[in-house]
Amino acid sequence: MTRPTTETAGAFIARHIGPGQADRQQMLAAIGVDSVDTLMQTVVPGNIHLSGLLDLPSPKDEPEVLAELKSIANQNRVMRSYIGQGYYGTHTPNVILRNILENPAWYTAYTPYQPEISQGRLEAILNFQTMVADLTGLDIANASLLDEGTAAAEAMTLAWRVTRHKDRPFFVSANCHPQTIEVVKTRAEGLGIELVVADEAAGVPTCFGVLLQYPQTLGDVVDYRGLAEKIHADDGVVACATDLLALTLLEAPGNLGADIAIGSAQRFGVPMGFGGPHAAFMSCKDAFKRHMPGRLVGVSKDAMGNPALRLALQTREQHIRREKATSNICTAQVLLAVMASMYALWHGPAGLKAIARRVHHHTAAVRTALQELGFKVANEGYFDTLLVKTGENTAAIHDAAVKAGMNLRHVSDSELALSIDETVRVEDVTALLAVFAHVVGKQVELSWPQDNELPGVAQTVARHSEILTHAVFSSIQSETDMLRYLRQLSDKDLALDRTMIPLGSCTMKLNATVEMIPVTWPEFANMHPFAPSDQTQGYKTLIDRLSAYLCEITGYDAVSLQPNSGAQGEYAGLLAIRAYHRSRGDLQRNICLIPESAHGTNPASANMVGMDVVVVRADSLGNVDVEHLKECIAQAGDRLAALMVTYPSTHGVFEEAITEICDLVHAAGGQVYMDGANMNAMVGVAQPGKFGSDVSHLNLHKTFCIPHGGGGPGVGPVACRAHLAPYLPGVVHTSGQLPADAPVGPVSAAPFGSASILPISMAYILLMGAQGLRDATEVAILNANYVATRLAPHYPILYTGKGGRVAHECILDMRPIKDKTGISAEDIAKRLMDYGFHAPTMSFPVAGTLMVEPTESEGLAELDRFVDAMIAIRQEIEQVANGERDANDNVLKNAPHTAHMLMAQEWHHDYSRHEAGFPMPAQLQSKYWPPVARVDNAWGDRNLVCACPPVSDYAQAT
Amino acid sequence: MTRPTTETAGAFIARHIGPGQADRQQMLAAIGVDSVDTLMQTVVPGNIHLSGLLDLPSPKDEPEVLAELKSIANQNRVMRSYIGQGYYGTHTPNVILRNILENPAWYTAYTPYQPEISQGRLEAILNFQTMVADLTGLDIANASLLDEGTAAAEAMTLAWRVTRHKDRPFFVSANCHPQTIEVVKTRAEGLGIELVVADEAAGVPTCFGVLLQYPQTLGDVVDYRGLAEKIHADDGVVACATDLLALTLLEAPGNLGADIAIGSAQRFGVPMGFGGPHAAFMSCKDAFKRHMPGRLVGVSKDAMGNPALRLALQTREQHIRREKATSNICTAQVLLAVMASMYALWHGPAGLKAIARRVHHHTAAVRTALQELGFKVANEGYFDTLLVKTGENTAAIHDAAVKAGMNLRHVSDSELALSIDETVRVEDVTALLAVFAHVVGKQVELSWPQDNELPGVAQTVARHSEILTHAVFSSIQSETDMLRYLRQLSDKDLALDRTMIPLGSCTMKLNATVEMIPVTWPEFANMHPFAPSDQTQGYKTLIDRLSAYLCEITGYDAVSLQPNSGAQGEYAGLLAIRAYHRSRGDLQRNICLIPESAHGTNPASANMVGMDVVVVRADSLGNVDVEHLKECIAQAGDRLAALMVTYPSTHGVFEEAITEICDLVHAAGGQVYMDGANMNAMVGVAQPGKFGSDVSHLNLHKTFCIPHGGGGPGVGPVACRAHLAPYLPGVVHTSGQLPADAPVGPVSAAPFGSASILPISMAYILLMGAQGLRDATEVAILNANYVATRLAPHYPILYTGKGGRVAHECILDMRPIKDKTGISAEDIAKRLMDYGFHAPTMSFPVAGTLMVEPTESEGLAELDRFVDAMIAIRQEIEQVANGERDANDNVLKNAPHTAHMLMAQEWHHDYSRHEAGFPMPAQLQSKYWPPVARVDNAWGDRNLVCACPPVSDYAQAT
Repeated sequence: MTRPTTETAGAFIARHIGPGQADRQQMLAAIGVDSVDTLMQTVVPGNIHLSGLLDLPSPKDEPEVLAELKSIANQNRVMRSYIGQGYYGTHTPNVILRNILENPAWYTAYTPYQPEISQGRLEAILNFQTMVADLTGLDIANASLLDEGTAAAEAMTLAWRVTRHKDRPFFVSANCHPQTIEVVKTRAEGLGIELVVADEAAGVPTCFGVLLQYPQTLGDVVDYRGLAEKIHADDGVVACATDLLALTLLEAPGNLGADIAIGSAQRFGVPMGFGGPHAAFMSCKDAFKRHMPGRLVGVSKDAMGNPALRLALQTREQHIRREKATSNICTAQVLLAVMASMYALWHGPAGLKAIARRVHHHTAAVRTALQELGFKVANEGYFDTLLVKTGENTAAIHDAAVKAGMNLRHVSDSELALSIDETVRVEDVTALLAVFAHVVGKQVELSWPQDNELPGVAQTVARHSEILTHAVFSSIQSETDMLRYLRQLSDKDLALDRTMIPLGSCTMKLNATVEMIPVTWPEFANMHPFAPSDQTQGYKTLIDRLSAYLCEITGYDAVSLQPNSGAQGEYAGLLAIRAYHRSRGDLQRNICLIPESAHGTNPASANMVGMDVVVVRADSLGNVDVEHLKECIAQAGDRLAALMVTYPSTHGVFEEAITEICDLVHAAGGQVYMDGANMNAMVGVAQPGKFGSDVSHLNLHKTFCIPHGGGGPGVGPVACRAHLAPYLPGVVHTSGQLPADAPVGPVSAAPFGSASILPISMAYILLMGAQGLRDATEVAILNANYVATRLAPHYPILYTGKGGRVAHECILDMRPIKDKTGISAEDIAKRLMDYGFHAPTMSFPVAGTLMVEPTESEGLAELDRFVDAMIAIRQEIEQVANGERDANDNVLKNAPHTAHMLMAQEWHHDYSRHEAGFPMPAQLQSKYWPPVARVDNAWGDRNLVCACPPVSDYAQAT
Repeated sequence: MTRPTTETAGAFIARHIGPGQADRQQMLAAIGVDSVDTLMQTVVPGNIHLSGLLDLPSPKDEPEVLAELKSIANQNRVMRSYIGQGYYGTHTPNVILRNILENPAWYTAYTPYQPEISQGRLEAILNFQTMVADLTGLDIANASLLDEGTAAAEAMTLAWRVTRHKDRPFFVSANCHPQTIEVVKTRAEGLGIELVVADEAAGVPTCFGVLLQYPQTLGDVVDYRGLAEKIHADDGVVACATDLLALTLLEAPGNLGADIAIGSAQRFGVPMGFGGPHAAFMSCKDAFKRHMPGRLVGVSKDAMGNPALRLALQTREQHIRREKATSNICTAQVLLAVMASMYALWHGPAGLKAIARRVHHHTAAVRTALQELGFKVANEGYFDTLLVKTGENTAAIHDAAVKAGMNLRHVSDSELALSIDETVRVEDVTALLAVFAHVVGKQVELSWPQDNELPGVAQTVARHSEILTHAVFSSIQSETDMLRYLRQLSDKDLALDRTMIPLGSCTMKLNATVEMIPVTWPEFANMHPFAPSDQTQGYKTLIDRLSAYLCEITGYDAVSLQPNSGAQGEYAGLLAIRAYHRSRGDLQRNICLIPESAHGTNPASANMVGMDVVVVRADSLGNVDVEHLKECIAQAGDRLAALMVTYPSTHGVFEEAITEICDLVHAAGGQVYMDGANMNAMVGVAQPGKFGSDVSHLNLHKTFCIPHGGGGPGVGPVACRAHLAPYLPGVVHTSGQLPADAPVGPVSAAPFGSASILPISMAYILLMGAQGLRDATEVAILNANYVATRLAPHYPILYTGKGGRVAHECILDMRPIKDKTGISAEDIAKRLMDYGFHAPTMSFPVAGTLMVEPTESEGLAELDRFVDAMIAIRQEIEQVANGERDANDNVLKNAPHTAHMLMAQEWHHDYSRHEAGFPMPAQLQSKYWPPVARVDNAWGDRNLVCACPPVSDYAQAT
């Protein structure tokens, strides 16, 4: 059968990759290479360069991939969930669904390191922080954490950082969610913290801190005031896991004595998605604020004195702290935190309380009815969760519920629990009780409490103060209000839907619509992570197939998709190395070698598994100094645990010595951790699992098209060779508990981390196939070399490999310019905003430089637009250098320019308004205006405000 | 059973209606009325004011309504369609689906009458026009028409307008789509044009024009050169229905001799949606351009001399032509035309040809295989459609196909036809042939033509010239390119997602996300309008239920959802009146009375059914002058056919005399047509079908939340009392043919018009219920009175009703200001853009005025923002009036101001840059910048260019 020659399979490849074939030829000519093959042979060391194609399915077109994912989705059976345990059904307001989660203006944005072009999402996150601080009754909240489990672990380490009592254990209440306890256990074990897990009702030992849960996992609402006083009397820290919806009716943990509160904001409008991504939160008392992990949005002012937001206390981030880092949680879940904050604005304080009251009233009605049916309900105080003594009927009720399309939480052979969420309606409650009634052969009438009653909430734990008192939470009345607010915020920001984001090491590539579509299908979105496994077969298929593809791509033997950020993947990889050494009796192996150019997360992860970091020097070309490495290895002796190395290097070069380096480490009994941050330069070209590395993480949110979401979600799978496979993160049972024989605990709360966004990477791989993935890598390298070639006459390229070529990114050295002219890398970055660009990565991995990674998705026209802007800026610098323009008052130092600045009636600069605002002719057609001028970071850190300021502040400032 | 008191049903009502309860009280206080009830009693005449609630289902919440619509959708069974006949499966590119059809920046935009804030969609439509002109080989194309059937009717009337041979008939080829022929018949009948429908192969009589189809409905591709020459020789006009995809491979109709080309752009990425909405197109030779119906985007320049787009030849629109109008087609299908144009950009010329070639090759393969199976295939020349002589196997094959999940076109008892579209894959063709093979008990192998072969296309009709040669069609290579282009265009425009659009009579209310979501569900989106009725039960349920609700709302007895614009609804209503009179032997009744304030579509519709228009005067209050009406009725005598009256009046007032007016008309044997344009002031408050009117149209795109889409789609159901019900538009069989006994023909090509957007209105009614709908009406009236009250001290309110109140809109009289200061309504409209607002309606219904309809969806804050802007502008005018500011060079005359203008290095105005660009403090937080300065309409009309100009033009102009 002759198939038609105009097949559409593979059509997507050309949609994903920016430059067409003709453009590629033009670029090759510009860099002086005859073919992509030749370029690749120059760039990639021959001994690691794959000759053939990966063994992956052949590329499919968009309709085929959607159909295939739909058939996978249809293997899931979504039932009504009463499981609770930290994950609840919720209605994502449709206006938020369409205009945030499905809108590229929000989901393609990058982390707001450049505040002038990020004011929209910074405002949304500030709302999130204000909401969390308000509901938890604490002074300050961060911009979100990865999930409730890791947030709990971070609460423990925060307590660890501030305590003087490092000889004491940390106490974890057995009334926390089981999966939370498991994640804390993993973390404590790595750090060598002694843990006591027990029911606090039986007494709490003297400890440096406690983690309690309020309401408890099985529903009880306990007044922790007395216990908190006791802990404080012992100089201990009180951390409390909690639930934002419950807190609209319950006294805030901060008022019960908690010093730290953590939890998940999932039920504020974020689909369960089989466990994630969701935004966890953390708040704490003022005294702890400089020890708090995670990002923090704060209020500052701009160069014109107007209020402006930015990430506060940036010095805490590990790319600056490096080997001093004690947490690698600087990733947030911005997109989901934004959704949760908007959910709060959408409903407002009264609406949230109404939802909570409805949930509680349904719960009360169920409780009464169950008691009428003769069941003992264990909870006296409760919010939304009941523990039912089902005795010998347990299995019968559980199974009957499943048959009727609902899942209950199996607690023990004689107990079931159930949690009510906002999606539960009267008819659902009726159906639920019918299951119980049928099994015991009775009937029951439902009746609800009076409107003003809260039967499960004792006066001592009822909230008497107002919630969400800031005006912003009452600013949205109608959908029109919300729609315009979302548009107004997103218009302030520059995301991939408007411009190239040439961030080195962050791989801001196309997040294609077809890849995003399945994420919000109900079959994927509405699955509870602890639903019975026969209902989650679609996810299983997805996870198994994606895992197999990632093994093929990396050359490793096994992969875990559980880590929900790259940093978590790293941490999981080091946990595996640690456990492997321990399994062999090598308890002393605790030195981790890290090159000085490493990502900041590397030393942080090493610290988190109790390893000592030794820094290996780089040579003048930016490569690992092999001689120094040998010295370090010798010095470490049998304490050598691992080398962490990024490949291609953070300097953007394929080091030729990589196999030698791996051999040296192996010979000394160490393991090689290869950071996968730069995997986009290797997919289809080289397999780290085959050329010497033992374990790597991948960034699905960089290399495999999951969007950055303004700073999260991420997915950071960890992949390894067979000998490390047993030590990948443990996967908990649907009970939330770890199998007894698991050698390593979980690193994330959900068994498969942020599972609901895996369809994105799956779709990408299916669309591209082996050929497309390799093409993408080659064009990423071509694009970087084209940019480097065009910019080299104007800016020195700091590091190059063999033949003067870079890999997938290049570093522009601005230090000589700074020395000569006073114009800094920051000035150039800010000036690029006037040209309509997001800045490249600043001062990483080398201070005073800009790093550019164009990715394969940018076409020639956009690359040229960027290069032209950079060259024009170089000329602007030259005018400063030769004295034509003022050294301090010039387009660079004053950048970015707002429209308001450029319309000042008086003009005292020696450059024109048009030069400042319309440096390129095409901007007449389309011009992005930054909403604020350059933001004063230091001022904000000195005057730390991390919640919404009074509305009057804005009025005064203008 | 006590239900919980915190139910969510009805929650949507508060989301749809802008002002909350507290705000409503504040507004009532401001206007000096104690309650909404009192206000309504003042505004609405007591004899028409409903006392109770409408009989509608009680309001539901968003999840409930989505579930209900999903269950309706699931009653549809979507099969693979080989029916063709003008409707084809197509892949909407996902990036276009999400970022146009599902994006409020595009779908909530208004018709681009204000070009300065509409440059984005104007550019997209210019691309559409360029595409159509290029592919059809004609000089000029319009901005789209309603559907292929009406476009064909418009082609006939265009020929009618230009011909000197009004004694001749119009010839319609029997090879046109059956539904096209039916719509043309309806139109011809109304206008009194003699029609000949026959196969042109049997000879064509001398006629003023012909309509041919190329390719023909049953697939043949005929070289019409000879026939066209013959028609031209007889001084006739040649119109040709055609197919854009076919034209990528076939010689353009313009090159075969066609003077006019029409057709549907549906298969360029717009879902079939059970028949609509889709964009039809029309192109013609240059000599006809000023006679062409529909809107036309043209290139002009702005006040700074830069290129700028705007609607050209606006003087053709019926709101200006009034009783001279001969077409009411000024509605376009902008949203769908934008999608189709973007589909062309997405695929580019090479991609479109590849799709067409694939379609053709599949068709050729099917043809060969069918012949091998022993079937006679009638077509020698063909593109995508084959007529198969199936003989006695016809029914068996048809039914076997249905069982196998596919629909064939039943042509006769011995013939089936099939059409291949871009969604058909190799496996589909295989399955299709298996059906035929199985019935005849044979097997067949498939084989495809060589890549460069076009076996069904003779050299004489093959296209030899390049297609889509303008650079814009080759500008999109990657999804990144498309995403940014769409964002860049939408950023230029002001839509409801950024600001109130206070357009009088256009009811720019919230288009809620929940209402939009079902539209793109595959069960609704992918249904062919002529699928067997047992497969379309979901649509039937939707149509039946929505029809019943609309009857209850209007008080009429029957409704037809077929008209796909308000003007079409009007036309259908007058057709019903005409047919009713004729059925009673009143052939002479052909006078239509129309008040002078009427919408321009009124006289146009009357003309289209052959009625003579007599204009009834208004009194000084703007009401129908009842005395003059009596005179007109007397003068008309037994020729009185109808009165067309808008209620509340276009002056925004509930006329007290309405029942008397209706009685007068009825007493004289006439019928009352009540224009439903202002139905938003009556829903739940008064029922036109109960207080004297016989027939009305509704605008679902105004009153019932279908978004305006930048100028279409619309849905204009016609509702009537029982005696007119038999004369509602005829509904064709699934064959496309009208039942023989139908007294009136169809007005739209598809049986139920733009069916796929009906879920929007259905959702709205279900969400609001009777109470919500009445609340909405009342708040619409409250909002209008609040605006009128606040503005009255500053601008005279032209017409008010009893008690000095307006209905749902108010007219601000700018004529005294103009006389005194030279500042015109247009200057004020343009100045509002500097404040970030879309202008109100200008000079309708009274020249020199602005009409404001706030709708119920705007909240108090936004109303105040608008009123404050208007008051501030009034003060700016005062400064001109008192000589403080220059009379010709001021913020009003120079408005709108672009950022570029305000950054001119030299500043020669006596107002400041900030005064011009930042007139309100809140704009520091969020400012919309018009991309062009005031557009010069006259210059563009004098230098008419209606296709994309060469790229160099833009470069030169800046």
